[in-house]
Order: sequence, then structure tokens, then C-alpha cells
Amino acid sequence: IYKGNYRALERILEKSHKGDIVAIFRYLSHHEKIKTFQILMDVDIEKASDVLYDLDEDLQLEILRSLPLKEAVRILLTFSTGEIAKIIDKLPDELQKHLLEKLEEEEREELEKYISYGESSVASLISEDFISVFEERTVEEVLSIIKTAPEDIEIVYIYVTDKKERLVGVTSIKEILTAPGSVQIKDIMESDVISIKSNATKEEAIDIFRRYDLFILPVVDEEDVLIGVIYIDDILDAITEKTTEDIFKMAGAQEEELFYTNQIIKIAKLRLPWLLVSVFGEIITAFIISIFDFTIKEFLPIIFFLPLLAAISGNISSQSAIIISRGLVTGKIMESFKDFLYYLYREVKVAIVLAFIISGIVGVIATLWLSHHIMGMVISLAIFINMVLAAFSGGLLPYILLRMNRDPLLATGPIVLTVNDIFGILIYLGTATFFLQYLKL
Amino acid sequence: IYKGNYRALERILEKSHKGDIVAIFRYLSHHEKIKTFQILMDVDIEKASDVLYDLDEDLQLEILRSLPLKEAVRILLTFSTGEIAKIIDKLPDELQKHLLEKLEEEEREELEKYISYGESSVASLISEDFISVFEERTVEEVLSIIKTAPEDIEIVYIYVTDKKERLVGVTSIKEILTAPGSVQIKDIMESDVISIKSNATKEEAIDIFRRYDLFILPVVDEEDVLIGVIYIDDILDAITEKTTEDIFKMAGAQEEELFYTNQIIKIAKLRLPWLLVSVFGEIITAFIISIFDFTIKEFLPIIFFLPLLAAISGNISSQSAIIISRGLVTGKIMESFKDFLYYLYREVKVAIVLAFIISGIVGVIATLWLSHHIMGMVISLAIFINMVLAAFSGGLLPYILLRMNRDPLLATGPIVLTVNDIFGILIYLGTATFFLQYLKL
Repeated sequence: IYKGNYRALERILEKSHKGDIVAIFRYLSHHEKIKTFQILMDVDIEKASDVLYDLDEDLQLEILRSLPLKEAVRILLTFSTGEIAKIIDKLPDELQKHLLEKLEEEEREELEKYISYGESSVASLISEDFISVFEERTVEEVLSIIKTAPEDIEIVYIYVTDKKERLVGVTSIKEILTAPGSVQIKDIMESDVISIKSNATKEEAIDIFRRYDLFILPVVDEEDVLIGVIYIDDILDAITEKTTEDIFKMAGAQEEELFYTNQIIKIAKLRLPWLLVSVFGEIITAFIISIFDFTIKEFLPIIFFLPLLAAISGNISSQSAIIISRGLVTGKIMESFKDFLYYLYREVKVAIVLAFIISGIVGVIATLWLSHHIMGMVISLAIFINMVLAAFSGGLLPYILLRMNRDPLLATGPIVLTVNDIFGILIYLGTATFFLQYLKL
Repeated sequence: IYKGNYRALERILEKSHKGDIVAIFRYLSHHEKIKTFQILMDVDIEKASDVLYDLDEDLQLEILRSLPLKEAVRILLTFSTGEIAKIIDKLPDELQKHLLEKLEEEEREELEKYISYGESSVASLISEDFISVFEERTVEEVLSIIKTAPEDIEIVYIYVTDKKERLVGVTSIKEILTAPGSVQIKDIMESDVISIKSNATKEEAIDIFRRYDLFILPVVDEEDVLIGVIYIDDILDAITEKTTEDIFKMAGAQEEELFYTNQIIKIAKLRLPWLLVSVFGEIITAFIISIFDFTIKEFLPIIFFLPLLAAISGNISSQSAIIISRGLVTGKIMESFKDFLYYLYREVKVAIVLAFIISGIVGVIATLWLSHHIMGMVISLAIFINMVLAAFSGGLLPYILLRMNRDPLLATGPIVLTVNDIFGILIYLGTATFFLQYLKL
């Protein structure tokens, strides 16, 4: 649109809120992205840094890879060490090398520490935009520190440290405004300050924000030295990422797929393992069905209802699994065995009611259709047993996963559905064979 | 634990952070909850109000229903009108009546307006804890307003209004501190203030917070009059609710289930519709199978692979559906038809690679097992066609749902899996019949 008219673009970028700039970036062509970003860097390097930080990782990498080396290093140096740690591995080798050269010894050590914490650590969320003051400063001195603070720091709390730079308290601008000027900060500060260790996980940080209704959470190292803060708006983004991950996990897919936009084979490789689990599991169901072929040959209509059986018991099992696992994750269901049993028992009771209705309906339809009331009753009974057991196993598994320190939501994934199919079909055909062949009803 | 020793409990409640009090509430027995809450009300009504606000809705209602009528009304009057609107319908009739009597005419009107906005509106998130000043006030006057503001208001921004109480600007404490005392607020304020209308949805509020990295968002009515603010920590809770809702939707379950803890029949009623959809859909599959019974009688092993077929194509279809719908929701995939087509085409290409591998494996196993290479090839071909079509339909549906203004995530629910089963089985048995019966290969 703005072919050539860079002056106008400069003015627009200067005036626009970074959130709006981030939002339009995805709509630009590759060339436009790079050009726009370079102009933004010239106009306002701080804003360019914020925009890059807020972009999705695939766009971040696209821009960093295409910028001239020097420019890429310049913008990366505006990032916090934690944020650099998050993306450095994905940058081209040469850019990595140049960036590392520009970092100071101390920063490099910190960087290595953060990389060792891994993707799930809070490191990438840590911001260095905060104000901390020595505890013996007076209110008046702190007021002048606040007045001269860099413009882009949102001041809500002022952190207080002792002479070893350990976090010892927190206070707010309002308290400072109302206190007499000569009082030392340590006499008005709140010393009961909530903080988080730098090697904590994002999950832990999210929980603390939820529990204590904070805007900003101070981060300390092993010696309680204040090293940064986490802003709640970055937590918001972390939650969105986590949600996407959870939803993908439920289907045995992985989010990274969206990054490898054009690498079909790479995506196929990511997905194949889950499908293979299904394939080999369902080959077992094929063998089970083949074992019962004498029953099937004699009473063919039995297998008409196989897909119905698989669908209904899969459905009721995932409902139980989701209700129990989400209850456990959000804390509505306590981790105590007693509380869990109460909900599991409830799931089974609900399943009995539902199984009674569904198996009744299917039984009536089957009887009328096949004009064979014994086969109708047997199909109905087999569905009933299956549904109740499916609800039981669907509800039990999230708890077992949680006790094994795995994500309970995995219980809704493909493995469980496959295991469900295997047992469901075994029980269904077993029940049918027992009544139709052995009891000769 | 603290049987009888209420004095000690009082002291603990006084000192504890409200987040911690909220966290222990679920572990108390019914009697303990009510008693603890009453003590908390006596010790610190403000904290009691915050605690009640942060509790999950089931616990809120449990407490409100069991408190003496007068006490329940007293604590509810500490709530904002939006929050009352959210729960008033679920309160006992008598409590509703008493509460309405205590409200002023104006508040009652506001309440009715909020109730009419419905559950998805931001109304319940609106807080009345904010500071606004008339635009002609001087910096000095504003400073003294800040100093005398109620203790529990977190002051980050100060909102500026004109003489009709319309929102015209915003400023921060820091700006006020650095400005000369005699300047009018309108000369230092930022007049480009981001706000939201009171009839907006929670979804819209969440988007604004994500986009603009705010801590607090002012809420205005139709005439731009400032009526409240939304705090980001309440948005955090709203996002959690939304996530739970999404995850439940994927399994055809509903979150409210967790509230009706002991009402088995009520829960069964909530879940029955989805199961019935599956039942009737799968009865169609039963008819389809019965139509092909001549093929099945002749080539029984064909049906050994029915569960495998249903599982694999269900799996690949939900993967496509989740990737496309999540991509659309998070904006990684644009809503433009062209961009969507690109990703759909990609899904189909991935499916072709996967289908090639999976159908190859199944084909080899079937041929070796059944010693009938034509049947093996036919099974393999039918699985191949099915997988590719499943990926195509799984990827297409979220886009159609989005265009119909429905949640694209519904595409992973039970209805789609059922429809998938119907077409999958039809195609599978159709292909097998065509090759085995008509072509007599």
C-alpha cells in the first residue's frame, strides 16, 4: 500500500500503539515485514523491541533471520537475557556467534543458566524494567528516584532490598506519597512480599498470579537477590500458549506444526507416532474380532453395532476423563484420594443412568429391526456394560496420570481411546458370544 | 482443627492473604466454611468480600445460601452491581427479594441492564475501585485526592473526565509526580485512552488486554460516561473459565456439571443430547453395514478392520480440525479464504504422506495375515482414501463454522466424529464391495 512512501509510514509507526503494529504484522508480505521493521527500528528502537517481543515466535524468527546481521544483534541486545535464552537456539549460527560476542561475561553466564532451565521455566518472562531501592533510603530520596525513572517502566510497586541486594520488602507509590519525607523505606514497607525463584516453571508463576491477584511478581535467585520482575501481561500470553498446547495434546497433535509451514515431511513425522499407536492398538481389535468369527458368522447383525459401541464408549470415556482431569487441574476436585473417589463414583452413577437410557433405545431399535429379541437384548446388555466400564476407566486414568506426575489431560488422547476400543470390543463380543453361543438363549 | 478456638482463627484470618484463604476454603466441611466465613466477615468485611468474590461460583452459592439472611444481604451489598447480576438468579427467592429492597432505584436499573447483557458480558468483571478526576483539576489537587483514596484501590492510572463525567483521558502517578503543581490535569493527560463499552463481551475484553498490555481497562456506557474499570487479574480468571469451557466443548460435556455435585439425573440430562446424536448417527452406520452384508458374508475379514478405520480417520480428522481451528482462533491462520486454503491444502498433503505409510503397513499386515493379497490391497486402498478425506473434512469444517459465526473448535466434537464414521464406513465398504464383488479381482 505504502509503496515508496516511507516518510508517511514512519509517522504512522511513530503514532501507533505497539499492540496495533503487532496485529498488522501477520498481514504483511515477507518483504514488507522486514522493511517495516527496519523503519520502526530507526524511528523508535524501544517500540521495535516491544513489537518483536510480542510477535509470535515464527514471525520473530522470520524477521531476525532476514535482518542484516548488525541490525539483528542490535535489536536482540534490547531483549532481556531470559528472552534471548528462549530463541537463541533457533537463530542462524552466525547470528548466535555475533550476539554472544556482544554480551558481557556475566550476561553470558546468566544466559547459559537460563538455557539450562528449559522452555517451561519463567526465565523468558523475566523483565528488567523495575525499580528497587536500598532499605535505608528515605521516602524523599525514593520519590526523586521515581521521578527520574525511565519513561517506559510502569511503576506500581517499588521493591526494597538490603545491602546484599536481597529482596526484603515492597511498597507502593501511594504509601510513599502519604509517608513523611524523612522516614526510611524499611519502616513503611510491607515485608511480607510474594516472590518466585528464577528456576520456577511458568505453571508455578501462573498459579501465583491467580492466587494473589498481583500485577507484577518479583523474581529472585537462589540467594534471594532480586533479579527481575514478571508482568501479568506476559503471563496472559503464557496462558494462551499453555491452552493451545493442552488442546493440541488432546488430539495427539503438537503446536509446533504451525511453524513448519511448508515442511510436509517434518509435520508428518511429528504426527506419525500417535497414529502408529492407534494402528497397532486397532490391529489388536482386528485380531479380537477374528477370534469371534464363529459368533459373527452365525449372528452377523452383532457387528452392525460395532461402530456405535466404539463411538458411544469413546464418548462417555472422554467426558469422564475431561471432567475429572479439568476438575483436578483447576482444583475443583481435590487431589485427596477420598475426594477423587467421590467424583469417580459420581461419574459411574451418571454413566449407569445414561447407559440405561442408551442401551434401552438401542435394544428396542435392534429388536424391532432384526426381529430377534434375544439378539436385541444381548446387544443392549453389552452396550450397557461397556458404557459403565468406559466411564470408570475414563475417570480413573487422569488420577493415575496425576499421581505419576503426568498431565491428566493426556487421558483424553488417542492412546486411551485405543485401549478403550480394545477392551470395549472384547467385552462386547465376549458378552454376545457367551449368551448367544454358550447359553443358546 | 480449630474447634472452639475462634480467637486464634480470627487472628489467622486477619493476617492471611485473601488468596490463601480462598485456597483453603475448598478443604473445609460445610459447617466450617460457614463459620469461618462469618468470623471473617466480623474481622474484616472488605477481605470477606474479596474472598467471596474470588471463590468459585459453587462455593459462593453454598455460602450465600447458608448464611443468615441479613448477613448474606450485607456481604452482597459489598459486591459491584455487575457481580450481583451474575449470581442473583441462582440465589434463593427470599434472599433475592431482600437484596433488591436494599438496593437503590438507580442500582436496580443498572442491575436489570446488566442481567439483560447475559453471562458472556463484561458486566460481572466491572470494578468500582478506581480514581477519576475532573479535567480542570490541578496536579496539586489530584495529588491530595490520591493521598486520601481508600486503601484498597491499586492506583496505577488516574482517569480524567469532563464535566459530563465522560472519559477524556488518563494519566499515571509518575506523570503527576513530575509535573508542576499548578498545571491542569488536561494539559498533562494522555487523551488517547483505550476503553471498552459496558455491553461488550468478555471475549472482547480479553482481546484488548492481550493486544495493549494493560493492567486496568476503563469501562464506559453508551454516552462515554466512565462507570468502572476491569482489572487484569479478573481477566485471568475469565480466561481460565473460557479454557475450561473450550476443553469441555470438545468432548460434548459442559462445565456446569461440576456444580451439580450430587444431582446425577441433572448431569445425565446435560450429557444425554450429545450421546443421542452419536447413537442416532451410529445407527445409520449400522444400516450401512447391514446393506453390505453380502460382501461381509463373503469376505468376513473386511470387518476386522472397521474399528481401525474409525479410529485412524477420527484421529487424523481431529488433528486437522484442531490445527486449523486453533490457528484461526489465535490468528496464526488468517480468516482470508486464500490463507485458509493454503493450510487446508497443507493438511491434505500431510494426510497423503501419513495415509501412504499407514495404509502400507495395514496392507502388508492384512495380506500376510489373511493370505489374500487382493483383500489386503483393497483394505489398504480403502484406508488410504478414508484418511485423506477425513483430513480434508476435518480441516474444512472449522472454517465453515467460523464463517457461520460459530466456534470452530466445535469441529472436534462428537457430531463431527459421528458424521466421519458414517462416511468413512460407507466409503470403506463401498470401495471393498466395488473391487471384490464387481471387479471380481
